[in-house]
Amino acid sequence: MRPFRETIAVEDAKALALEAASPVDRSERIALRDATGRVLATSAASAIDVPPFDRAAMDGYAVVAGDTFGASRDRVKTLRLVHTSYSGDAPAQAIASGECVEIATGAPLPDGADAVVMVEETEKTTEGVRIFTPVYPGQHVGRRAADISKGQTVVASGSVLNAGSIGALAAVGTTTIEVIARPRVAIVSTGNEIIEPGQPLGPGQIYNINRFTLTSIIETHGGTVSAVDTVVDTLADLVEAICRNAAADLIVFSGGSSVGERDLMLDAVRQTGEVIFHGIAVKPGKPTLLGKVGSTPVLGMPGNPTSCLSNAYLLVIPMLRQMARLPPYEPPTIHVPLARRIVSTTGRHQFFTVRVVDGSAIPAFKGSGDITSMAHADGYIEIPAQTDIVEAGEMVKVKLF
Amino acid sequence: MRPFRETIAVEDAKALALEAASPVDRSERIALRDATGRVLATSAASAIDVPPFDRAAMDGYAVVAGDTFGASRDRVKTLRLVHTSYSGDAPAQAIASGECVEIATGAPLPDGADAVVMVEETEKTTEGVRIFTPVYPGQHVGRRAADISKGQTVVASGSVLNAGSIGALAAVGTTTIEVIARPRVAIVSTGNEIIEPGQPLGPGQIYNINRFTLTSIIETHGGTVSAVDTVVDTLADLVEAICRNAAADLIVFSGGSSVGERDLMLDAVRQTGEVIFHGIAVKPGKPTLLGKVGSTPVLGMPGNPTSCLSNAYLLVIPMLRQMARLPPYEPPTIHVPLARRIVSTTGRHQFFTVRVVDGSAIPAFKGSGDITSMAHADGYIEIPAQTDIVEAGEMVKVKLF
Repeated sequence: MRPFRETIAVEDAKALALEAASPVDRSERIALRDATGRVLATSAASAIDVPPFDRAAMDGYAVVAGDTFGASRDRVKTLRLVHTSYSGDAPAQAIASGECVEIATGAPLPDGADAVVMVEETEKTTEGVRIFTPVYPGQHVGRRAADISKGQTVVASGSVLNAGSIGALAAVGTTTIEVIARPRVAIVSTGNEIIEPGQPLGPGQIYNINRFTLTSIIETHGGTVSAVDTVVDTLADLVEAICRNAAADLIVFSGGSSVGERDLMLDAVRQTGEVIFHGIAVKPGKPTLLGKVGSTPVLGMPGNPTSCLSNAYLLVIPMLRQMARLPPYEPPTIHVPLARRIVSTTGRHQFFTVRVVDGSAIPAFKGSGDITSMAHADGYIEIPAQTDIVEAGEMVKVKLF
Repeated sequence: MRPFRETIAVEDAKALALEAASPVDRSERIALRDATGRVLATSAASAIDVPPFDRAAMDGYAVVAGDTFGASRDRVKTLRLVHTSYSGDAPAQAIASGECVEIATGAPLPDGADAVVMVEETEKTTEGVRIFTPVYPGQHVGRRAADISKGQTVVASGSVLNAGSIGALAAVGTTTIEVIARPRVAIVSTGNEIIEPGQPLGPGQIYNINRFTLTSIIETHGGTVSAVDTVVDTLADLVEAICRNAAADLIVFSGGSSVGERDLMLDAVRQTGEVIFHGIAVKPGKPTLLGKVGSTPVLGMPGNPTSCLSNAYLLVIPMLRQMARLPPYEPPTIHVPLARRIVSTTGRHQFFTVRVVDGSAIPAFKGSGDITSMAHADGYIEIPAQTDIVEAGEMVKVKLF
């Protein structure tokens, strides 16, 4: 058996992981309605003015502004109503001084009119429309191109699309857009004891957990699982699994990166590419390997489900988001006092799960083999490598799941 | 034309909206791998122990702990190696005192053994395995059921599923789960000027924006768009649209809730159900209506795209998450100084969009008809109804999109 020769600091591991994670250049065309959270691949310029015409911004009367100057409740001006213009109508015929058009919000302003008097400031009578207030030219008018002008960049390349930017793309008549393709991640489960949920457990067998936790993380952070693979723990099979998945943007192995005699990930990566690091000074999650095969980063994650998932938070999320061209993830955090003292391992950065109950953080970490260390926790605190004790009552920053 | 008789405060509007939004009771069965973000409908209890057997928590040697007492580098104990046990193997034959089994992490402990000595504390020689350290009974052993015991609740009903809880469900062999159904939302666009992107614009026409912004909001916050409907602005058509979509959990109209002569939403809701409020003291977004038809809440949102979307942030998100049984949304926020003075409308709560540039908030709000008020902003600040001026340099809380 081969113990780790040396481990690297978690910060160094993260920096090397980001270095190995190249942003994806491929793009794909999708429907605008599916665009939330996607990254625009090419800047979108408008082919039209929005609005495409001068329009009423209020319900009321389209007027020649000059006709209203001096109007008040005491000095009412009366205009002749020549037309009613609803939204969706073509513009009404042009008006002249002394005339007005009843107009709904959004309807095109008739030629000749240059302002709208709000309905609240008017009274419609059989003699005409009584105007109680002056308006200036342009008042209550949405000018053609006020929102977006023809040729203008509506949404810049690299933007993460949300409701507002999708709305702007719809406003200029967009139906499909080119977005950065989601990084393709191959998940390879190793370990002869692992079987899939749904099958009965044989002696010595346990269910595959990591495949599910990794899928959840990958799909939440902009990636897509391109393959789910299970291999037995032989050098030939591991090498074959790497080659079979070499077209992925990232290959994540779980299991098989510890130091046992049958731990062959190190040899498999050496044989097909280069090892970047093997062993991180972090708890749990020490037996983690990063390599590169061709241009594809390969992560060898611990088989223990909590170690695998904690390293997914520490390494997979930053790598994946960089590959997907998404901004770094900032989990929601709360600051609360620690309910009980934690004794940490000096020299290893600790990922320590907690529950938040009645405004304090209660340790929830059981063991790296226990998925309930994660499942029954609300989030985690990070304890730096050089800290060995966090006292009860000390304020801690909980990163919520 | 009918002006608003009165508006209600935004806080009251939100409270009434939440009162009208009943949590969904329907559930549906989905694959575990699709469960991220879904709400578990029934508590999941385990049918098995996890792990299902005592297992090695380290690579090393399974021993009778008593055999190692007193061992040290100076007083080495030597044990006879009788077997090698890999993970996935059935348990090795029972061992007796003086014997050991080479064992990989995760492999089942043989009967007779009650501890594991880490490989680092041993040396394998032709005479046997040299042990350099004592271990106590249970050391480096993952006990059967230490993670989850048979009958235990693995994930409680009502939990929002994440990587950790999905992992725990996988650990007990789950393949499918029962989750709360997504609230079905019908989006109805009214306004005769609205056409769908992809078609050429005729005179007086603009593209449908609200359908896309509402879809983005609905799908991000746990809902599903069950129908996308477009109706012309007549009372009969609006009534028919309400009836046609009455099986939805929520109907959102956009357009047609203002005070124009042809604003018929108020009458359509009165004719089919009851009006809860009409008009909110908020800017933009004042002409907003909430009603209830049977048990289905009906929102009449302004047609202006920024008004419609700002009210989606203020009302639709809270309603929808309550219906979906998701916790209230807490947007990421930052506190920065305001770059320029904002003069706000007294008496109306203001939803004011800003860009965040070089650590300060720059007003991004153009007009309620301009979708770029949202699309070219990073988030928004809320200015209470009684505040009329926010000075340059004042710290503001920006809720990020």
